[in-house]
Amino acid sequence: MTSSRPNYSASDFQDELALIASSIEESLGNMLACQNPGERENQAMEAMRLGALAGGKRLRPALTIGSAKLFGLELSQVLPTASAIEMLHSYSLVHDDLPAMDDSPLRRGKPTVHVVYDEATAVLAGDGLLTKAFEFLAGENVHPDPLVRCRLIAGLARAAGEAGMVGGQMLDMIAEQTPLTEEEVIRLQQKKTGALIAFSCEAGGICAEAHDKEMATLSLYGRNIGLAFQIVDDLLDLESSAETLGKPAGRDKVAGKLTLIDAYGLDEARAKAQMLVNEAQDAITWAGEKAGFLHRLAEFVLHRSY
Amino acid sequence: MTSSRPNYSASDFQDELALIASSIEESLGNMLACQNPGERENQAMEAMRLGALAGGKRLRPALTIGSAKLFGLELSQVLPTASAIEMLHSYSLVHDDLPAMDDSPLRRGKPTVHVVYDEATAVLAGDGLLTKAFEFLAGENVHPDPLVRCRLIAGLARAAGEAGMVGGQMLDMIAEQTPLTEEEVIRLQQKKTGALIAFSCEAGGICAEAHDKEMATLSLYGRNIGLAFQIVDDLLDLESSAETLGKPAGRDKVAGKLTLIDAYGLDEARAKAQMLVNEAQDAITWAGEKAGFLHRLAEFVLHRSY
Repeated sequence: MTSSRPNYSASDFQDELALIASSIEESLGNMLACQNPGERENQAMEAMRLGALAGGKRLRPALTIGSAKLFGLELSQVLPTASAIEMLHSYSLVHDDLPAMDDSPLRRGKPTVHVVYDEATAVLAGDGLLTKAFEFLAGENVHPDPLVRCRLIAGLARAAGEAGMVGGQMLDMIAEQTPLTEEEVIRLQQKKTGALIAFSCEAGGICAEAHDKEMATLSLYGRNIGLAFQIVDDLLDLESSAETLGKPAGRDKVAGKLTLIDAYGLDEARAKAQMLVNEAQDAITWAGEKAGFLHRLAEFVLHRSY
Repeated sequence: MTSSRPNYSASDFQDELALIASSIEESLGNMLACQNPGERENQAMEAMRLGALAGGKRLRPALTIGSAKLFGLELSQVLPTASAIEMLHSYSLVHDDLPAMDDSPLRRGKPTVHVVYDEATAVLAGDGLLTKAFEFLAGENVHPDPLVRCRLIAGLARAAGEAGMVGGQMLDMIAEQTPLTEEEVIRLQQKKTGALIAFSCEAGGICAEAHDKEMATLSLYGRNIGLAFQIVDDLLDLESSAETLGKPAGRDKVAGKLTLIDAYGLDEARAKAQMLVNEAQDAITWAGEKAGFLHRLAEFVLHRSY
């Protein structure tokens, strides 16, 4: 605990996190409403809904909303942006689960899109979610200034594309054939999950038209949280059961893949996660009481069990 | 030939079409430059280049550039937008060719992305191209006014998403299981190829900040060209050899799929394509001599042999 810790209780945090999750669920549901339910091609939209409305922690929207709070923005002002980011995250899960990728039958304890429908439908559902995220960000609901919308689109695309998530997943696929170096394991994480988590934080600042200095603190918070999140993910994969995770556990070890735990060592990995979270919290103390939610969210990333 | 035919020769048209094709190839090559060639995840970018730089007619960029010409814009002013549209078209080809989709080993006479690399890489290459198209459209190179960029992004996403290409390909996949109705065959075409061809025309008007009345003529031209294009495509699939097409011929018939030829009948289909092209040409006569390229392009769509 640092001396500058904002006065924001754990139960307030849990309430707010639950409100964000239910708001995102409702928002995504509205964005993915079937326009012509009688048409058979609506199977694509149904599969998109399955991929996006499966619940989950909604961590990325929480980061966007929490970051916007630093600048006094309300949930409603940033909910459209946060929803588009979560929609893009959903696309990546649908495609990562494909038989040609990670071949995952379960996600959050439920059958994945390609299991419920088929592989072609899952490819299309992912394509549809990715496309819809950008369509939505281009609309006036997101922000009255079109330059802000363009910045959000460009930033999200950079985090998602081959310099980000696509490149990270490519490395993950390469790891199935030949072992990665430690350097590559770290780069895999930065690209596959780190880039979007960092952008989720920056997006709150973009919506608030934050200055460069403020943006830099959000980037630092986001990069640290992204890496801490992945270390905890690898620890959970090592230690948890499938029941707790809602997906098969120990898969990386079985697949012989190096993880961040291998790169850092088990004890160092735990210490590093704690250090990253502390640094993240310190980066946003300038916002005072307004940083309460993000401060707690950093701890949540560290102590989560799923 | 209508009385209002612009004075623009067939050889000028061929020269201009070739210039557009080479400009698009160069532009896509620059957009898809490898940033860190030493990293193994660059396989994704290499696969993206394979998917996008395989030549082709570059019909969609030609439509965008031709539409912008109606308003006096030069090729250089609209080349970035046209390139982004072609990049998005490339994504759809890479994903459509996947084993889980149309399972095509050849495209323009060359092995497809999943054949050269593997299925996972082809999924990622398509995702990367789709994402890059939107990233690029959000940038200042495309147009100085961010509202214009947002309009391009929203319009392209609508043409590409589940109300457009994704929905059309979904219907095409459904057709592998159960026959489509004639109504569905027509809707499949409108969504799968018609929506992007129509948007390619509208995009020229959006870049030129055209008025609603002018935009309506572009939409009419584009819708007609889209349907004529697909009728000719179905005729070519029926009548050509794989050598001419650069991909297997007669696949729809073998797969037992209804095409627009089945929906309209062979003779009526030919007559309808001619009528659509005439109507398209009439829609843009208001632009006088500036309509010369689009006028010829409509004929090219009708008389092409590949």
